[in-house]
Amino acid sequence: MTFTDTAELPEAASAPLSRKDHILRAARLCFSRSGFHRASMSEICAEAKMSPGALYRYYPSKDAIIEAIAEEERLAASACLAQLAAPGPIARRITDVALTYLAQARDPETGNLMVEICSESLRNTAVGERFQAIEAEVRQRFQVVLEEARSRGEIAADLDLDLALTFLMGMGDGLVMRLRLEPERPAETLRPYLHRMIASLLGADPA
Amino acid sequence: MTFTDTAELPEAASAPLSRKDHILRAARLCFSRSGFHRASMSEICAEAKMSPGALYRYYPSKDAIIEAIAEEERLAASACLAQLAAPGPIARRITDVALTYLAQARDPETGNLMVEICSESLRNTAVGERFQAIEAEVRQRFQVVLEEARSRGEIAADLDLDLALTFLMGMGDGLVMRLRLEPERPAETLRPYLHRMIASLLGADPA
Repeated sequence: MTFTDTAELPEAASAPLSRKDHILRAARLCFSRSGFHRASMSEICAEAKMSPGALYRYYPSKDAIIEAIAEEERLAASACLAQLAAPGPIARRITDVALTYLAQARDPETGNLMVEICSESLRNTAVGERFQAIEAEVRQRFQVVLEEARSRGEIAADLDLDLALTFLMGMGDGLVMRLRLEPERPAETLRPYLHRMIASLLGADPA
Repeated sequence: MTFTDTAELPEAASAPLSRKDHILRAARLCFSRSGFHRASMSEICAEAKMSPGALYRYYPSKDAIIEAIAEEERLAASACLAQLAAPGPIARRITDVALTYLAQARDPETGNLMVEICSESLRNTAVGERFQAIEAEVRQRFQVVLEEARSRGEIAADLDLDLALTFLMGMGDGLVMRLRLEPERPAETLRPYLHRMIASLLGADPA
């Protein structure tokens, strides 16, 4: 899962990008284009239009850059998940989080980076493990919210939470991929069906 | 989407693998490990334990091998989709196809190959386009079945078929990925929730 929409960074921050942000943005572009392994520090330098000497002052290694991107993802995920704590029915709160996530993951860099991260996770590389740790945090946040909803009687008492989480995470991954393949479809059009399926999965009132 | 479970080939065919099958199997392993672009003909020769001269007699290029794998995928997809024509409620038939597909996609080579294919599709490479053509066929088969079900009044009259297909394909992709990350979970345990969500998506009787 990736949460940061690099394409929106300039709008979000009206101040010019810091040198570190500038480097991370160039690195995301290189990783999404060439993959974590193939992208080299010299490719990142070229993309950032910086000399190796200048770039290495901010990030001493490719691993340090990947770690910084993972930290950005962790913070973005956390911000996105804050919607889980909003008032309202559980299925709607989860749908809201999902749609924010899907909207953020539309841009090519983030979408391609997500596929790269999946590939790393499936191959159990160090990079994959780093991002799986973030995903474990996301899953944990959803689990707490589902447990609370179950204890309130808002979702089915016999719901297998672990399995339900597998479905929610799987739908998230799959829909990010689909929306990248169907760029003309506005993410918001998914809302009614997504909401209905989540309510049905959880055995929740579809209100 | 990938449909061929290479790990099951030896059991399925008690006769020894043909030379061509043997080469394709080695190539799948190389592609799943190194990606379509990085895997070289010499890597495939080494994996197949064949000399370049011997291997080139069967497949004159890497493209020819990729084309043969795509054709295997097309045939496997077609066999898997035959379950759509079985009798019974639409949601159950689609669930059956999905579970067969998920069970086939469990082995590491097929799962990793799927991520490679996604990556190629998102980057619009020739390989990606070849596999997207297969996916378009799969989507078309589902569409016909959904149209029939709608004309029989078995699913919601106002269902947006195109959007429903996006959800079905997206769930397929996402769950394949999840099951690769959770290898200890039997695919069959997904059946009740998957069936419920598909019925809810389609506005079909969950019977």
